[in-house]
Amino acid sequence: MSREYPQDSVGLVQPQVLHFDQPLELVCGQTLNSYTLIIETYGTLNKDGSNAVLICHALSGNHHVAGYHSDDDKKPGWWDSAVGPGKAIDTNKFFVVCLNNLGGCHGSTGPASINPETDKPYGPDFPIVTVRDWVNSQVRLADHFGIQQWAAIVGGSLGGMQALQWSIDFPERLRHCLVIASAPKLSAQNIAFNEVARQAISRDIEFHDGHYYGENTVPRTGLMLARMLGHITYLSADGMGEKFGRELRSDNISFDFTPQFEVESYLRYQGKRFSTAFDANTYLLMTKALDYYDPAAEYDNSLSSAVAQTQCKFFVASFTTDWRFSPERSREIVDALVDAGKQVSYAEIDAHHGHDAFLIPIPRYMEVFSAYMKQVEADTPAIESHDTVGGTDNAC
Amino acid sequence: MSREYPQDSVGLVQPQVLHFDQPLELVCGQTLNSYTLIIETYGTLNKDGSNAVLICHALSGNHHVAGYHSDDDKKPGWWDSAVGPGKAIDTNKFFVVCLNNLGGCHGSTGPASINPETDKPYGPDFPIVTVRDWVNSQVRLADHFGIQQWAAIVGGSLGGMQALQWSIDFPERLRHCLVIASAPKLSAQNIAFNEVARQAISRDIEFHDGHYYGENTVPRTGLMLARMLGHITYLSADGMGEKFGRELRSDNISFDFTPQFEVESYLRYQGKRFSTAFDANTYLLMTKALDYYDPAAEYDNSLSSAVAQTQCKFFVASFTTDWRFSPERSREIVDALVDAGKQVSYAEIDAHHGHDAFLIPIPRYMEVFSAYMKQVEADTPAIESHDTVGGTDNAC
Repeated sequence: MSREYPQDSVGLVQPQVLHFDQPLELVCGQTLNSYTLIIETYGTLNKDGSNAVLICHALSGNHHVAGYHSDDDKKPGWWDSAVGPGKAIDTNKFFVVCLNNLGGCHGSTGPASINPETDKPYGPDFPIVTVRDWVNSQVRLADHFGIQQWAAIVGGSLGGMQALQWSIDFPERLRHCLVIASAPKLSAQNIAFNEVARQAISRDIEFHDGHYYGENTVPRTGLMLARMLGHITYLSADGMGEKFGRELRSDNISFDFTPQFEVESYLRYQGKRFSTAFDANTYLLMTKALDYYDPAAEYDNSLSSAVAQTQCKFFVASFTTDWRFSPERSREIVDALVDAGKQVSYAEIDAHHGHDAFLIPIPRYMEVFSAYMKQVEADTPAIESHDTVGGTDNAC
Repeated sequence: MSREYPQDSVGLVQPQVLHFDQPLELVCGQTLNSYTLIIETYGTLNKDGSNAVLICHALSGNHHVAGYHSDDDKKPGWWDSAVGPGKAIDTNKFFVVCLNNLGGCHGSTGPASINPETDKPYGPDFPIVTVRDWVNSQVRLADHFGIQQWAAIVGGSLGGMQALQWSIDFPERLRHCLVIASAPKLSAQNIAFNEVARQAISRDIEFHDGHYYGENTVPRTGLMLARMLGHITYLSADGMGEKFGRELRSDNISFDFTPQFEVESYLRYQGKRFSTAFDANTYLLMTKALDYYDPAAEYDNSLSSAVAQTQCKFFVASFTTDWRFSPERSREIVDALVDAGKQVSYAEIDAHHGHDAFLIPIPRYMEVFSAYMKQVEADTPAIESHDTVGGTDNAC
């Protein structure tokens, strides 16, 4: 007997693997002759293909956005709080498509995949992919489903960059662009943190210049350090203080190097868990995609010019204590859109969670997000409501 | 022929090595039966020993605060901008004492020193030292010079914690306490960054559980990562942006993992330089001293109670963009002192340099610092002015 899932959950879901044989020319100059994308979809595509929503993932995300992979699954997908029947992205109304990006390590073609030219894993030879490359690969995905125009493309953080790039490169193919907790390009400090993470990984003796797949090892220490560092930048200083303070794990100070403060123990745990679950070469690629993202660069550093030809409406949201991509960075996007005469709704949400806030169902955030998605719905005349909840509606 | 030094430089200086044979009981419960402190002094101690100023160093600092060690020296000591004839800490007026703290790696007894009990380097067996231990060792230094009461004790960052601890533990032995860019205890975020640095060092395969001295190696990668990370927290996001922006090192993006942005190259350089100049075990000890510092802890977490018995006057300064020890943290100290009815001057300096600002001769900062030191001078009746400048006055 199948487990009972909450009424507002998409329930049991199954990833799909799609193969693409049309060569994909990448920004770096290399070409992927063929590639695989692993995806999940929730809800039902309507007849004219007008109710589709694409969700783009961030640095360590993947295609498993909502629901459960098995009845034993303890945790649902990474954005289950926002995607499901009746939720902000309502799967009764929308056909939701999520993928693992190229270069990923969750089933799409990436560094651990076999390079058909060598019959060995790509490893460090996997080409550097950019946000624009991901968008190009996502266009193929839209074509696969016969989606001429997305009702909305939604993304947080690095996902928001993909949504923004869609609006610039394929203005006719989306009606709404939702850019959450993102930035129009990295700051020097953002790049600096990425560089420390990359050095930690690539200087790990187990990295073997990226060829660790054949060595029966992985650069665990490097990945652990990268994740620990990442975690600090995902949380606000105040949020971290509220969560951990200076709480000691035992009553006495031990005067040695065992973890004594709760925050040390938490970070070590998170780092270790990540180091066995994520691919090091993918981590390097994702940070490079972040560093290189700068849509204004080819428009004489004018973001307003970069977005001048966009045709969709925009929703931009930021969180007060996010210091990775602060509200100021979101306002740069908003200002450019306003300058260019585009229609944009902006919400700055009070939250103590730092950058992580975009993944958390903060009431005010969910309220404005849902309200905006109602507008997306209103702009999708042929929408058909599907009241079926749970897993039965999710096969695709 | 000796090189010409600037008029306001202490000129050529020579460190002094002092041996102490009276056992020092440490907070951790262990005892150092004997130890060495390397120091430098500038200016002349007056007859009644009332014009002495102690400068306490921060995480990676040392005894070489001002002047030059040789005519070939390109750079002066780490706080040369504030210490010299006519400078904020005027060596024409004050006898300035600076030391490398216990556990250090610049000449004082530390992990690389020979443990008399084993005839081998202490390595990881060097006891964990705390801010209070440093103060106790500095008391011996005062006694050595016959300094009954310091005119002032001055420190930035971790150095400020030592100054504050002096005022609490030895209220009669200082007239002024200058706490710059410091905090009454670390935040969870501060501890978290320290923990990443410690993990980077201690998981480096060259660390050998701290016994690398015998292995003819040092954990360079770990130290490099720790320093790169440290550097990010020493600079403000805006300051880093102004300094490096997203400047590329060459005109084209190379789509590989070579350093492409100026900020990457800068951090790698700083990290590498540090990794061959600093001792890994010392770095671990210094971060632990920071983590453990919490003078309010034994006063029911009341900082006002902790400072209730202090007798000196205080100068507290912070810098607007310092996010390692933000102005808010300095105000906690000020508020506690005010609550306890103490005399305190507080300056919040506009500066875009982040935490590093305390080492930089920002005009407004130097102005208020100098003005306060004039007050210290006024409170030192027996002060004798020495107009001799340059190196001749520095032997001690």
